[in-house]
Amino acid sequence: MSRKEFSVAVAGATGAVGELMIKVLEERNFPVREMRYLASARSVGKRLAWKGEEIEVRELSARAFSGVDIALFSAGGGRSLEFAPAAVEAGAVVVDNSSAFRMEADVPLVVPEVNAPDIANYTQRGIIANPNCTTIIMVVALKPLYDFSRIRRVVVSSYQSASGAGAQAMEELKEQTRSWVKGDPIEVKAFQHQLLFNVIPHIDSFTDNGYTKEEMKMHNETRKMFHDDQIRVSSTCVRVPVLTAHSEAVAIETESEITPEKARELISAAPGVEVLDDPERNSYPMPLFTAGGDTCYVGRIRRDFSVENGLSFWVVGDQLRKGAATNAVQIAEILADQYL
Amino acid sequence: MSRKEFSVAVAGATGAVGELMIKVLEERNFPVREMRYLASARSVGKRLAWKGEEIEVRELSARAFSGVDIALFSAGGGRSLEFAPAAVEAGAVVVDNSSAFRMEADVPLVVPEVNAPDIANYTQRGIIANPNCTTIIMVVALKPLYDFSRIRRVVVSSYQSASGAGAQAMEELKEQTRSWVKGDPIEVKAFQHQLLFNVIPHIDSFTDNGYTKEEMKMHNETRKMFHDDQIRVSSTCVRVPVLTAHSEAVAIETESEITPEKARELISAAPGVEVLDDPERNSYPMPLFTAGGDTCYVGRIRRDFSVENGLSFWVVGDQLRKGAATNAVQIAEILADQYL
Repeated sequence: MSRKEFSVAVAGATGAVGELMIKVLEERNFPVREMRYLASARSVGKRLAWKGEEIEVRELSARAFSGVDIALFSAGGGRSLEFAPAAVEAGAVVVDNSSAFRMEADVPLVVPEVNAPDIANYTQRGIIANPNCTTIIMVVALKPLYDFSRIRRVVVSSYQSASGAGAQAMEELKEQTRSWVKGDPIEVKAFQHQLLFNVIPHIDSFTDNGYTKEEMKMHNETRKMFHDDQIRVSSTCVRVPVLTAHSEAVAIETESEITPEKARELISAAPGVEVLDDPERNSYPMPLFTAGGDTCYVGRIRRDFSVENGLSFWVVGDQLRKGAATNAVQIAEILADQYL
Repeated sequence: MSRKEFSVAVAGATGAVGELMIKVLEERNFPVREMRYLASARSVGKRLAWKGEEIEVRELSARAFSGVDIALFSAGGGRSLEFAPAAVEAGAVVVDNSSAFRMEADVPLVVPEVNAPDIANYTQRGIIANPNCTTIIMVVALKPLYDFSRIRRVVVSSYQSASGAGAQAMEELKEQTRSWVKGDPIEVKAFQHQLLFNVIPHIDSFTDNGYTKEEMKMHNETRKMFHDDQIRVSSTCVRVPVLTAHSEAVAIETESEITPEKARELISAAPGVEVLDDPERNSYPMPLFTAGGDTCYVGRIRRDFSVENGLSFWVVGDQLRKGAATNAVQIAEILADQYL
């Protein structure tokens, strides 16, 4: 059986998520005819691996997309706003990891396990948006529960790792660790405050209602993906001194009761998510043991006795993989298989 | 004005909280006539400071309390069960930091800022219980809000520091940090898993309903202190790689609306707790900058838009001081001033 192959561009190829997009495209054997690495001027000329060869990084520009079928963007919202339309103009379909287009009505926002059919609407703007990483990890766990009983409300607190702020932020946490051991002054650049031995209740900038943008994304993006403007998501997003993988304590209220047993059954049967919930054996999801994989793990599943039809759980996922790179590649796979 | 002085014993004097009890008694110039340090057999003979002198540690035994007026216990639940009754028998009033007696109907459970008048009931058993550290930090913030409008429900996620599990647990986090930098194997003893660069959703043992004992304490102890068996507290207690001070993301539902402005006003006027809430200037409570003090700090105050009469906030306090030692000494002060 012959399989169609595509010209693929990765915009932001030298960033933490961009590099991982390349790795995931390789791992999943994406049908690539030609691979193009794009980044800002200062990275031009760098050579990055692709299936045993090396490809030179070219400058991210409007002209760089000629002949490209699928462009994966992870170069920041400003670059997406500037260059995604040019990529579409050149004939590419854009899968954009930034927040630039996520809430636009004519841009589908997709987690394949949640709302894969929305990908069909890519034709409107030529762009599909990849959701916020913390939101992705939560919604893969919410989806099987939602399909059993509509979710009315979510209260979630996050424990987000340093690499969510980029490769240099993860490096800063490591450097702070080395400085602490040496007794050197601890330098703070990537975050607002020292992250080592601290937690910082501040991710992205603050909005007028006292929530951060990160927290509002969890509300707005969840509603959009579930096509449900009744669901309300209140979150507190917190940076913790973890290198990779985000954790979330989630309390939901559903229309009808979902027992913990039923929740385990529903989540076990769902794609992209697994139950890891044997507390008596000290078994529950943790970021240290989740980083590097694509599965989100759910544990600490229990009835929330503080409200009718309440359920509490704990979910952990690698926010660079399923929360960003892998989700984008999954979208590209569906595009490639079904639409292009 | 002459001031009455007391014979005071600290049971568990060599532990993290015991040592801090001694420090706080000194700091606050507690009216001590005679100080007695008690600990297990292996610490007997150690000499610990008291106001510029040294006192030798004696063995914690039933006979050690003869002549003692006030005994502060922080030697673990088993020791409290074994020796607190003997201390009472010998004529002492016991302030017990363990969970052994907290939920007993004839033992007052007290955070002075919340329910100081309950101290009067010490006469029933001769024992006053100091609440769980995570609960104390939360209730000092809840109290001024509760007095304005009854709280129906609390959903809270904690970010608890290593020293909550004792001095050796804090040392283990430091040792893991040094090992990581050296590239040595990371040893795990105090916690179930590596804490460095990780978060562990498991504090104390699990109960049949899927919550941990730590989580159930937040529910049960809050109800007892507020004398309100309608309030429901659902929590997820999580250990994070922080040395000292616990943080909590709290979402409450109240009978009538408390606006964020009103909440700031109420908390600002309350004892033991301060508002630190200027997010535009990156100002909010964090454990790294809270450790070492007695005040609990509240920030990220905002209307929780996901529910009627919802309010969200973030509270941080030093769990060894206000969450344990200082709270116990405050109770002892009220005993000394008003009852003994």
